[in-house]
Amino acid sequence: MDLHTITSPSFLKELNQKQLAELSEDIRQFLVENLSKTGGHIGPNLGVVELTLALHRVFDSPSDKFIWDVGHQSYVHKILTGRASQFDTLRQFKGLCGFPKRNESDHDVWETGHSSTSLSAAMGMAAARDIKKSKNHVIPIIGDGALTGGMALEALNHIGHEQTNMIVVLNDNEMSIAPNVGALHNVLGRLRTAGKYNKAKDDLEYLMKKIPAVGGKLAATAERVKDSLKYLLVSGVFFEELGFTYLGPIDGHDMEDLESNLQYAKKVEGPVLLHVITKKGKGFLPAEQDRIGTWHGTGPYKMETGDLVKSSSKAPSWSGLVAETVRKIARQDERVVAITPAMPVGSKLEGFASEFPERMFDVGIAEQHATTMAAGLATQDMKPFLAIYSTFLQRAYDQVVHDICRQNLNVFIGIDRSGLVGADGETHQGVFDIAFLRHLPNMVIMMPKDENEGQHMVKTAIDYDGGPIALRYPRGNGLGVEMDTELQALPIGSWEVLEQGTDAVILTFGTTIPMALKAAADLREQGIKAEVVNARFIKPMDSQMLHSIFQRKLPVVTIEEAVLQGGFGSAVLEFAHDHYYTDSVVERLGIPDQFIEHGDVSKLMDEIDLNSDRVVQVIKKHIQPEVKAGYKAL
Amino acid sequence: MDLHTITSPSFLKELNQKQLAELSEDIRQFLVENLSKTGGHIGPNLGVVELTLALHRVFDSPSDKFIWDVGHQSYVHKILTGRASQFDTLRQFKGLCGFPKRNESDHDVWETGHSSTSLSAAMGMAAARDIKKSKNHVIPIIGDGALTGGMALEALNHIGHEQTNMIVVLNDNEMSIAPNVGALHNVLGRLRTAGKYNKAKDDLEYLMKKIPAVGGKLAATAERVKDSLKYLLVSGVFFEELGFTYLGPIDGHDMEDLESNLQYAKKVEGPVLLHVITKKGKGFLPAEQDRIGTWHGTGPYKMETGDLVKSSSKAPSWSGLVAETVRKIARQDERVVAITPAMPVGSKLEGFASEFPERMFDVGIAEQHATTMAAGLATQDMKPFLAIYSTFLQRAYDQVVHDICRQNLNVFIGIDRSGLVGADGETHQGVFDIAFLRHLPNMVIMMPKDENEGQHMVKTAIDYDGGPIALRYPRGNGLGVEMDTELQALPIGSWEVLEQGTDAVILTFGTTIPMALKAAADLREQGIKAEVVNARFIKPMDSQMLHSIFQRKLPVVTIEEAVLQGGFGSAVLEFAHDHYYTDSVVERLGIPDQFIEHGDVSKLMDEIDLNSDRVVQVIKKHIQPEVKAGYKAL
Repeated sequence: MDLHTITSPSFLKELNQKQLAELSEDIRQFLVENLSKTGGHIGPNLGVVELTLALHRVFDSPSDKFIWDVGHQSYVHKILTGRASQFDTLRQFKGLCGFPKRNESDHDVWETGHSSTSLSAAMGMAAARDIKKSKNHVIPIIGDGALTGGMALEALNHIGHEQTNMIVVLNDNEMSIAPNVGALHNVLGRLRTAGKYNKAKDDLEYLMKKIPAVGGKLAATAERVKDSLKYLLVSGVFFEELGFTYLGPIDGHDMEDLESNLQYAKKVEGPVLLHVITKKGKGFLPAEQDRIGTWHGTGPYKMETGDLVKSSSKAPSWSGLVAETVRKIARQDERVVAITPAMPVGSKLEGFASEFPERMFDVGIAEQHATTMAAGLATQDMKPFLAIYSTFLQRAYDQVVHDICRQNLNVFIGIDRSGLVGADGETHQGVFDIAFLRHLPNMVIMMPKDENEGQHMVKTAIDYDGGPIALRYPRGNGLGVEMDTELQALPIGSWEVLEQGTDAVILTFGTTIPMALKAAADLREQGIKAEVVNARFIKPMDSQMLHSIFQRKLPVVTIEEAVLQGGFGSAVLEFAHDHYYTDSVVERLGIPDQFIEHGDVSKLMDEIDLNSDRVVQVIKKHIQPEVKAGYKAL
Repeated sequence: MDLHTITSPSFLKELNQKQLAELSEDIRQFLVENLSKTGGHIGPNLGVVELTLALHRVFDSPSDKFIWDVGHQSYVHKILTGRASQFDTLRQFKGLCGFPKRNESDHDVWETGHSSTSLSAAMGMAAARDIKKSKNHVIPIIGDGALTGGMALEALNHIGHEQTNMIVVLNDNEMSIAPNVGALHNVLGRLRTAGKYNKAKDDLEYLMKKIPAVGGKLAATAERVKDSLKYLLVSGVFFEELGFTYLGPIDGHDMEDLESNLQYAKKVEGPVLLHVITKKGKGFLPAEQDRIGTWHGTGPYKMETGDLVKSSSKAPSWSGLVAETVRKIARQDERVVAITPAMPVGSKLEGFASEFPERMFDVGIAEQHATTMAAGLATQDMKPFLAIYSTFLQRAYDQVVHDICRQNLNVFIGIDRSGLVGADGETHQGVFDIAFLRHLPNMVIMMPKDENEGQHMVKTAIDYDGGPIALRYPRGNGLGVEMDTELQALPIGSWEVLEQGTDAVILTFGTTIPMALKAAADLREQGIKAEVVNARFIKPMDSQMLHSIFQRKLPVVTIEEAVLQGGFGSAVLEFAHDHYYTDSVVERLGIPDQFIEHGDVSKLMDEIDLNSDRVVQVIKKHIQPEVKAGYKAL
């Protein structure tokens, strides 16, 4: 059928199994075709086609609430709720979001992006329903990877205790972004195998009857044997112990089985865990064969072959540069250990892992545990490298405060995907880390101007023995600069003048340095000499250089691809007033006090007016004597 | 024995059971006596006397690593490692810390204060040991309450998967600070009961033999029955499923049983969970009878009767004021729901809970889940009140960012214990919340000058429909001011001039307002007129008033009992420069860039030079014409 004609999922209830099979086929075709142009999370969505159809047939969205954990698997849901025609703008500026979005549709009742929030949200919605004495269903859909996130486990524990009505759909594709680690994964593995034995239930009943009826002293024991056999019958002892009715495992591509189990789950009192086995990438061969890297989330590709439309950059990726430099140093330094919360591929740690398997820890989606484990390693004189995306480090803020900074331990935090990340949007922009780390005692924060400085900063971080040190680096590739062969540690807190100037000073670091240099070049053509400083240490700052800048009484402009409030520019302001320098206005350019949506980074930067033209304009304003007089008049 | 003579725990290995029993008695006596003068966490420590003795007899600290989760139960450990003589300074300024502290002793290998970090730290230490091919033991000791914290569950999942050698001692006293909630609690309850049946093992073997030997089609089923019976034998199926060898439950006050189980655990390959049942407050009747409130952690008391040495304040406690005002409003407003992560007593929510049991949720030690559950409730038009200590809100930073602020949901966060908390020290000071919340879009933050304004702010928060709103309030009691009978919402972002002045302006809020008023009074005696502003909204600020202040070109002093970097003072600086006001120095007084230790709050404030004398001194400096000329000279 033409998916563009869908306005609401209600039509699904009229379809027969044959029509549903055709629709599944149409949806897969639509996804493979559209995503070949826009890119997107193709693997996870191909895996949940039948599951999403079954959910919308059995339940009534939006009065029944679907809560998509992480939310990158919500494309089929978006198609079925009338958004097919927007897929050509998927993850693009002002286009369809790659995650559930409440302002897109009433059917999106909860927004996600980060993992493991769905069960807590569902508990809140179920509690509200119960207080209001409403009757709707609440259905979180969570992957086996997301289930290992601490907050999901906290929620399981609470929901099982409250015995709230809720149907947790466990979408088990045997991997999150990377193959899953963790004991829970093994639990699920045993359950998948156990499924085969379900048909043996009758036999089992027969065996139970063979256990002799006993009384007296043996009665209690016999009772426990029967309890134990009950465990066996229900299979999902782990979840049953937590207070859930366990159903499954069932084939997530068998529509009839899905529907009958969902129908049954609707009638169960208390929380249900429905264990559904799906196949990531189902129906598109390249995605079925490689479910971890590219085909979890991908850029545009050729539909016929699955060949990717390659980026033209020959510079190393930032993740790769940092990980490979760590690996190089690890050859000399046996203290170096790498830790990732489920991102060995994204953080490009495969090389490190294959060379140093015993010094590599993928802990699963568990940022809190990863961070404190790094602290534990540091107490034993190891040099842990914790590779973590900026946006996910938010999950471990307390662990950074309480375990790392407070104990002043030598943990090297590689803050990957710092700054705007683009297509993933609001939930993934790495713009808060400076503001949430800068106020922590003992913390060092740095960001390199290019990949050559980046490799020296890796060396700096591993050599440093004064406590925690964080290296921010952006998503994407370096600039393609020449690389030194010798690694050299930088003096902590040292800045660098990139361009001398006498009319104004631009302080910036990392990705916005090219913007500053461009602005300085444009100004120079107009006879204005702006100094450009590579403020590569965000904390501690170069106080000697700051004194010299403020003593020259020039206007100062700070630029950061990060939130302005409490950010780097504020640190410069704090310095100025702590030393009673009031002759310079400090104009701070950066991310304003709003969440930044998805889209191409350069478009987003223009949208918030963060570009070299703005820098030029600001500096020209401040060096005009009349303007200066205006705000300086006593 | 005289506990003051102990310098190292090695002597323990020479004692016989009778001597150990006497030592236990001496330690209990010592604790009850000393803590009657200093206060402290008496209940938890009386509960672990035998356990701590057994640990130090079976293992060799510090090469074997004891990691005390939360750490408030480490007093016995402190006595046995040579610190008895410091107990008269317990939790006092420059005195013995109430938690493990690495600079106090080599036997304190990991510092705690917040819950649920021990397993991750232990995993780090065990990983370091394995990489170094060392042989030491790693022994985290974690309570049943702390086990429900998400990061502990993340760690269990990882440890079970890695199969690292580690002995997790589960100190199960059936409650954390409040009676435990959560399905895991039920799991433990079943295990405690199961203990009674352990003697039936022989009977069980007999029963197993009665199961007929079968072949063919039934073989697999029979095999699973036997597996299932094995589960039964080991009892701790939940932990066994996670990859742990489960031992227990054992009586935590039976020295011989403790030792033999610890000795056995030492020999097991892979991770062990040793389930120890202890009795909080054991041996001191008042503490045995009330294990939740007072006797978890207490102030000084009369040893003979257990009567508390009462504080003289007649003003309501801040927690009580806020909770009771929420309760009052809840009578009219059915949307109001209260959520606490295991702090119903500390947050004084017992009254609310008894009046509105169906609208009260104690989720256990699970700050992340609590926060996102509140967000879930808000999506359904409820008005959740999330009562959470400032220091524990750190655990939910990402949930505040990603779930509450980003979706702009009407969650009312009651930030209890904001500012310095005193005796609990470094790990508990509530000094970061402004810096980690201020940069979040949509967030409103306020703090009242007294309990009357406090009750109006509760009304303000519940009435507010614009998104998240946080109310900070300190530990301890209000000022004893007169209370209005009618509640009235304040205009968001409105400040209030408390005292007019023409020479300088002091901007402050909450607990530091009396300091500002005192400084202003002192200055007035010297002929200097300082204006005092109640900057009760930290975000958004009162921009109209700020414009008028800066237009008057007066020196501005900000005071906050919170970290300076990125704090309220920085917000004022940002405002000034965003509007090109450079005629005023803004001098920011607050918590410097260091962790603040335990001790009496007023002593801590003097230590960091945050008092009215300092305010007087700063203002006098800035109004001297020669000083002003000094930094204003062009």
